[in-house]
Amino acid sequence: MAFVVTPWEVSGEIDYKRLVKEFGTQELDAKLLKRLEKHTGELHHLIRRKVFFSHRDLDWFLKEYEKGNKGFLYTGRGPSGKTHLGHMIPWILTKWLAEKLKLKLYFQMTDDEKFLFKEGLSLEEATNYALENALDIIALGFTPEQLRIIIDTKMSGVMYPEAIKIAKRLTFSTTKAVFGFDNSTNVGSIFYTCMQAVPAFLPSIAAKKKLPCLIPLAIDQDPHFRVTRDIIQKVGYPKPAILHARFLPGLQSAEGKMSTTDGDPDTQVIWTTDDPKTVKKKINKYAFSGGKDTVEEHRKKGGNPDIDVAYQYLTFFEEDDKKLEQYYKDYKAGKLLSGELKTILIDKLNVCLSNHQKKREAARKNLKKYLATPEEFS
Amino acid sequence: MAFVVTPWEVSGEIDYKRLVKEFGTQELDAKLLKRLEKHTGELHHLIRRKVFFSHRDLDWFLKEYEKGNKGFLYTGRGPSGKTHLGHMIPWILTKWLAEKLKLKLYFQMTDDEKFLFKEGLSLEEATNYALENALDIIALGFTPEQLRIIIDTKMSGVMYPEAIKIAKRLTFSTTKAVFGFDNSTNVGSIFYTCMQAVPAFLPSIAAKKKLPCLIPLAIDQDPHFRVTRDIIQKVGYPKPAILHARFLPGLQSAEGKMSTTDGDPDTQVIWTTDDPKTVKKKINKYAFSGGKDTVEEHRKKGGNPDIDVAYQYLTFFEEDDKKLEQYYKDYKAGKLLSGELKTILIDKLNVCLSNHQKKREAARKNLKKYLATPEEFS
Repeated sequence: MAFVVTPWEVSGEIDYKRLVKEFGTQELDAKLLKRLEKHTGELHHLIRRKVFFSHRDLDWFLKEYEKGNKGFLYTGRGPSGKTHLGHMIPWILTKWLAEKLKLKLYFQMTDDEKFLFKEGLSLEEATNYALENALDIIALGFTPEQLRIIIDTKMSGVMYPEAIKIAKRLTFSTTKAVFGFDNSTNVGSIFYTCMQAVPAFLPSIAAKKKLPCLIPLAIDQDPHFRVTRDIIQKVGYPKPAILHARFLPGLQSAEGKMSTTDGDPDTQVIWTTDDPKTVKKKINKYAFSGGKDTVEEHRKKGGNPDIDVAYQYLTFFEEDDKKLEQYYKDYKAGKLLSGELKTILIDKLNVCLSNHQKKREAARKNLKKYLATPEEFS
Repeated sequence: MAFVVTPWEVSGEIDYKRLVKEFGTQELDAKLLKRLEKHTGELHHLIRRKVFFSHRDLDWFLKEYEKGNKGFLYTGRGPSGKTHLGHMIPWILTKWLAEKLKLKLYFQMTDDEKFLFKEGLSLEEATNYALENALDIIALGFTPEQLRIIIDTKMSGVMYPEAIKIAKRLTFSTTKAVFGFDNSTNVGSIFYTCMQAVPAFLPSIAAKKKLPCLIPLAIDQDPHFRVTRDIIQKVGYPKPAILHARFLPGLQSAEGKMSTTDGDPDTQVIWTTDDPKTVKKKINKYAFSGGKDTVEEHRKKGGNPDIDVAYQYLTFFEEDDKKLEQYYKDYKAGKLLSGELKTILIDKLNVCLSNHQKKREAARKNLKKYLATPEEFS
């Protein structure tokens, strides 16, 4: 089946194995995971379950790490709306990596990108979303020392002069081929990828030292670095390493990506600010079920967890492998009904979210401490 | 004859009348000049001699001026090398306008542009040229209050967020058509014109008021504003008015533009830092002469001032109309020899340059006071 994965469009049933081939990345194999585990002491369930499934040069990043050249992490967000659970997945793993590997995280808020690519979104709105979204990343438990949030339009004084160094070596041809741009694309969108390249080497400038960079991201963001990794090296900094995540599916199908672009977002996504009642309603009403049509039939033939959104979400949010395995078996055997599985997920999510929301609101008064300033990099 | 005029290429014998048609500008007519003279008290010789020959919306700018909505002036320089006399022409008139109309001048140094467009030029070099070139504009006699110099890479913190508002409304198609870009153009060059648009409305942002802007420039820069004037209006600021200058010719031909791009620049241009001996040598050796081959023939048939570079330069630098007329007549009549005309020019230029060079060096210690800071605009 046809599918599309670019930074601005994800559609169809995504074949992740084919993406690895098409994008020219490498699968995350057992040997490399073992090597990572040596440093982290354990493997996060998102890695054990292959939510992070592919990489570029993670081996090199670990080699540098082992030599004592510890580098930093970089990820980000295009602030065009509220944060939903799909956005949180790469951030949760990034937080874990930051903690276990004791690395600083640079988090980019691409308000310029969202303004340029989204019809009807003002720059002011995009910047305001950046500040709201920032609360979600802070809520994961960083100190201001560990997390520096780079809002593009607030940091363009240091970023634009670096971005043009990337831009000088990137032709329209290349962006056409990789991003699908054409003659009707606006010139800001064409330039933009150069701004996304900058945080991968900005810390090196400040440190006056070539620091290795690891970028955990959802696979749709890979094209940005596919076109700029070589250029980053040519302008004098290490090629960033990349860790690719697959997508958390939307409520209505276990395939694809949680996204607000098609139809009513409240039938597709769970916001990080949803209250327990809303979460319950959304899961019960919209989450696609792999169960049978009647209880009798379900008891007899069992459900299909592989296409069941509630089960799929549990693979992202239930840390305990044994519990997860039990759910899988019981659901398949018809012992666990679709409604029961949904209730397990609802309870799990509501515990996570209530905890997250408390930290998120607490973050509001400290927000400013996390925002990077041009002075930090000069 | 074929000629090309774009911001990055000027070649051939330029037909200025045809440019007015092709660019869709308007000739500067007697009526409009009279109106300008009402406010300036006199007309600068560069205007009397039609060095400034064309405009866009100067009538509107004067109308606003007459209503008391005084606005500001904006011009600039692409810092890819030292300043030569050709660069100074629009600046000299701009200084005169600033003085007579009591307007502030924003002067943009496009170090980003020159870095992006010029192979082999580093960004650091471009920025250093910007600082050197700044001395030449300051030397014209501005106070720091009257002249604010905007170095793009030093001001991108306030400029980039405004430039993307222009960029969102400008397609690659348009830049292709107007600037001749193609698929092999780098994405920074494609974006750049948006940065050149910003100083036309940045003062309005700071003043929280729609200020009229008048941009005196050499005609090759017109395409930048041809593509962005309408957009500037769409994002909420007045369309800037424009005054177009023709080019000071290079030493070797009275047609075309003084430029360093073809051959040895020292056979083409006079730098603002040239000493009297160098000026003398360059004019005597390289300035194309409209005189006859022998003194006898010249005395008999007379010279042709219209193709004589020395005479043409005097139309730019000799303020006195009567003197100029006399040179024209005497040269044509064969009374004035080519060498004599050159000596008149050499003496004239060396007085101007020695005066300029003193002020230029004096400007060095005050340079910093003239450089705009992001804080001025926030």
